[in-house]
Amino acid sequence: MLLRMSSLFLRTLRDDPADAEVPSHKLLVRAGYVRRVAPGIYSWLPLGKIVMENVAAVVRDEMNKMGAQEVLFPALLPREYYEATGRWTEYGDTLFRLKDRKGGDYLLGPTHEELFTDMVKGEYSSYKDFPVTLYQIQTKYRDEARPRAGILRGREFVMKDSYSFDLDDDGLKRSYEQHREAYIKTFDRLGIRYKICFATSGAMGGSASEEFLAPTPTGEDTFVACHSCGYAANAEAYTTTPPASVTGEHPALEVLDTPGTPTIESLVACMNSDHGMAITGADTLKNVVVKVTTPGSTKSEILVIGVPGDREVDFKRLEASLAPGEPAIFEEADFAKNPGLVRGYIGPQVLKDLGIRYLVDPRVVSGTSWVTGANEPGKHARNVVAGRDFTPDGTVEAAEVRPGDPCPRCGSEVSLDRGIEIGHIFQLGRKYADAAKLDALGPDGKPIRITMGSYGVGVSRAVAVIAEQWHDELGLVWPREISPADVHIVGTGKENQVEKALEIAAALEARGVRVLVDDRPSVSPGVKFKDSELLGVPTVLVVGRGLSQGLAELRDRASGEKQEIPIDEAVERIAALVEGPAA
Amino acid sequence: MLLRMSSLFLRTLRDDPADAEVPSHKLLVRAGYVRRVAPGIYSWLPLGKIVMENVAAVVRDEMNKMGAQEVLFPALLPREYYEATGRWTEYGDTLFRLKDRKGGDYLLGPTHEELFTDMVKGEYSSYKDFPVTLYQIQTKYRDEARPRAGILRGREFVMKDSYSFDLDDDGLKRSYEQHREAYIKTFDRLGIRYKICFATSGAMGGSASEEFLAPTPTGEDTFVACHSCGYAANAEAYTTTPPASVTGEHPALEVLDTPGTPTIESLVACMNSDHGMAITGADTLKNVVVKVTTPGSTKSEILVIGVPGDREVDFKRLEASLAPGEPAIFEEADFAKNPGLVRGYIGPQVLKDLGIRYLVDPRVVSGTSWVTGANEPGKHARNVVAGRDFTPDGTVEAAEVRPGDPCPRCGSEVSLDRGIEIGHIFQLGRKYADAAKLDALGPDGKPIRITMGSYGVGVSRAVAVIAEQWHDELGLVWPREISPADVHIVGTGKENQVEKALEIAAALEARGVRVLVDDRPSVSPGVKFKDSELLGVPTVLVVGRGLSQGLAELRDRASGEKQEIPIDEAVERIAALVEGPAA
Repeated sequence: MLLRMSSLFLRTLRDDPADAEVPSHKLLVRAGYVRRVAPGIYSWLPLGKIVMENVAAVVRDEMNKMGAQEVLFPALLPREYYEATGRWTEYGDTLFRLKDRKGGDYLLGPTHEELFTDMVKGEYSSYKDFPVTLYQIQTKYRDEARPRAGILRGREFVMKDSYSFDLDDDGLKRSYEQHREAYIKTFDRLGIRYKICFATSGAMGGSASEEFLAPTPTGEDTFVACHSCGYAANAEAYTTTPPASVTGEHPALEVLDTPGTPTIESLVACMNSDHGMAITGADTLKNVVVKVTTPGSTKSEILVIGVPGDREVDFKRLEASLAPGEPAIFEEADFAKNPGLVRGYIGPQVLKDLGIRYLVDPRVVSGTSWVTGANEPGKHARNVVAGRDFTPDGTVEAAEVRPGDPCPRCGSEVSLDRGIEIGHIFQLGRKYADAAKLDALGPDGKPIRITMGSYGVGVSRAVAVIAEQWHDELGLVWPREISPADVHIVGTGKENQVEKALEIAAALEARGVRVLVDDRPSVSPGVKFKDSELLGVPTVLVVGRGLSQGLAELRDRASGEKQEIPIDEAVERIAALVEGPAA
Repeated sequence: MLLRMSSLFLRTLRDDPADAEVPSHKLLVRAGYVRRVAPGIYSWLPLGKIVMENVAAVVRDEMNKMGAQEVLFPALLPREYYEATGRWTEYGDTLFRLKDRKGGDYLLGPTHEELFTDMVKGEYSSYKDFPVTLYQIQTKYRDEARPRAGILRGREFVMKDSYSFDLDDDGLKRSYEQHREAYIKTFDRLGIRYKICFATSGAMGGSASEEFLAPTPTGEDTFVACHSCGYAANAEAYTTTPPASVTGEHPALEVLDTPGTPTIESLVACMNSDHGMAITGADTLKNVVVKVTTPGSTKSEILVIGVPGDREVDFKRLEASLAPGEPAIFEEADFAKNPGLVRGYIGPQVLKDLGIRYLVDPRVVSGTSWVTGANEPGKHARNVVAGRDFTPDGTVEAAEVRPGDPCPRCGSEVSLDRGIEIGHIFQLGRKYADAAKLDALGPDGKPIRITMGSYGVGVSRAVAVIAEQWHDELGLVWPREISPADVHIVGTGKENQVEKALEIAAALEARGVRVLVDDRPSVSPGVKFKDSELLGVPTVLVVGRGLSQGLAELRDRASGEKQEIPIDEAVERIAALVEGPAA
């Protein structure tokens, strides 16, 4: 491959795009890899297309090595498949829906569990046929509420999704482990730093699930990590360690006047000053009202969440816990319609009578005593004991996680970081097989319900993640396997430098090296250098003034290291860098 | 590449799919290459995916060799781009339209002229930047009224579309010729037999245009070919040779009683028997009423088409002539509302007074005299002279073309055949550049409006076309470059035949040969042979009973030729077939 900048469809930009906030977005646009078409919808220019294909090639290679077989499904899908599993409605606004000319309902596939299940059902029937793993690398669609950060969170994006089909749980576990290993190899080859985190199942349904999160300050996901035992989980999957349940007597519930204390802060101050207590927010029970809707239904249920008063409700954790139910904020008007819920002074004591479900943080175990609302304006109660004065309908992981919280595995203090999801592996189980009645005929003639796994890699997103992790203040710094070229040869000067650059380029191309050569006739050396830094090819060869002394400059983009080399050695030196040390 | 049938996700079918009419559809489904998901929407199974990638690789290679640069656009596009060129409405029902969660209008791209134009405008500005040719290989969407024949005419399909951008008409012609050459190389490599036909521009707007049509009896397009001078055109683009205009006196127009003659046949019989004439249908002027709508408008215009009575109006030719106007049949109810148009007895004499436009076949030149309707039930007129008794508003290519009609280039008799469009090259001109105001700054500082070409290859369709042209009664017969494998090794028998087959397979794979090996343990030789015929890999090696004598059988799928060869020579013989003769 030999790309000549004199004819390459590429114009780099001096300024960051106005709508860009994260480094990958700024750099991929400035360096001419992608262009915006609509919110969350991008075009790929020649260098960007090459980079995405390089990522896809690594993903494909590791999938094939694992024994997965590549297929390709349509993106435009009839409603019926998703109707059968309930996802036509469950997906809510995230699904792009449309009608064809005959009025038939269609969608743009956000993920393809239903289709893969149907395909396997169509082809396979005997236990001898299984296990099988299929994958595709395909354009997918999700109407994200907040598309952001360029190709990092797009509405049209390229994804590798694979699905395993096994006869039993042990088989599923093996398929899952194989994918885990393949993903580790894939992301290692892509040069992505990542953390494998426990994950919740979300709208997908299923049991065991892990996410590959790439730590970056701009990441949308928060993950919890324990540096003591290696535990990692996304914040939604972090499980609170409940204290042992408390036994013993408590004084009777007592209602106190606490005028003007609708916040935890004001309540704690009032209790400590007016009522002789010495409590902190952690001793209070904060009750947050939400209304929960189920996709496809217009009715909503009122739900109260009880958390220790020193913690906020983390809405993403709450959403994950209630999925597919969707919680929304309980507003002024909602309170007006429900006079039993006294804003700022809600206590769980009355919820049963009001017929309102009450879910509590796992720390609110039976026998614990709390200061909480007394369900009258300006009044709170103390000695409100769980199991005595109220009985929760269950627990919920909704309270924010904080650095220093206990690791659920070893009890050490955890840290919190931000990351971007680059892969997800998932033991789906039999949800989709049940919906499609996907059975294999067993050796005894009886049907065996198939169990499935679902596994995804964001291919276009990976391009952004690599850019996010591999850049400096000058521009992109691609890992070699992903880079649009192995070497960027810059010819500068008015003598025969460009000619020589092209000669070296041709010699390297003949060796199988992928070359980008800057042969633009009337562009200054400064602009060419800046472009080479911005574009991020790992090795740069400058054929400039030194040529008259038989010298060229070899630059390493990542380290910035420069060395003069005899120009006659350039081809060998660069080929050796690309081909790696001889075995 | 080594595919083992024991684990390959493939099940061949004994019977043709119920909905399949054409051979490619039947065979691609039966051989397990594709599966139907919805009308005109298909999934690709592993072998089908490989074949499509092989086709795409050839297309890509020839595009790259031509100097075109690959990019990738989204399929989901905001309305605004297509609004600017009028195609949001012009495309009519063929466009898949949808709304996003915010109510914004989007479409699924049927072709990408607008986006490419916008991209070039965004990056390039100087005359020095041009010419440039960009392409993509991408999934496209058209909501066809009659999706048919499997992947031959799908609603979701893969297409290579490219666009050339030039400073002047000569440049455009060069770009067009380059594409023509590249397409010839592409289709030759794909093994497709084709005819390059003049084409109309249809809804695309523009001037010179040719289609690559693959002759097949099941083709949807009709093309006209002259075996004398080599002229070829699709039926829509065939131009009727007008006779010289006639001068000289004609008797006065005469209205005759012709009761019960609403058809040409009955009219000719009546004229010859009752009125002493000796005419044929060709002497009569048939007037066909249609109503024409413009996409986006609800109003329709009444239009009368005059053709010699011995010819039918070819609706596809009429549509092409009137595009983007869409003609529809003038129905009973329409006649009822327009009493001036006397069904079965319409003559052009009154159309001017009725304010109805009248377009005639090019044969209806000034001075020709016709028998036609007299606009009263049961009455016709003779000596109705063009230019004297009526004046058409123009000519229209709407009459059917028939074998034996004159070649517009040399006058010889043409033949008519059916074919499938596999490629289209098109000098668009400035339509899209005008809409987007795509200019280059010239050397004199003045803007130069860019002129464009648009070029398409149906990649997924090509798979079906190759299957359509390359099959026999036993199954598919792939050209080697397109085949899912170079060799299909069939191990049959209960001794060590399968083991040996796998050994040869591994040796060939190491040589770079793409191998499919049938190593299924409990499948009969007969089924394996049938599958090898159905799947259509060009070379088949049977490792069977002969193994004990050190023999295997080498079969050529296309010719059916079989020969026994020493098994020790199998690897060399097959590698030689694949690698071709040494240079």
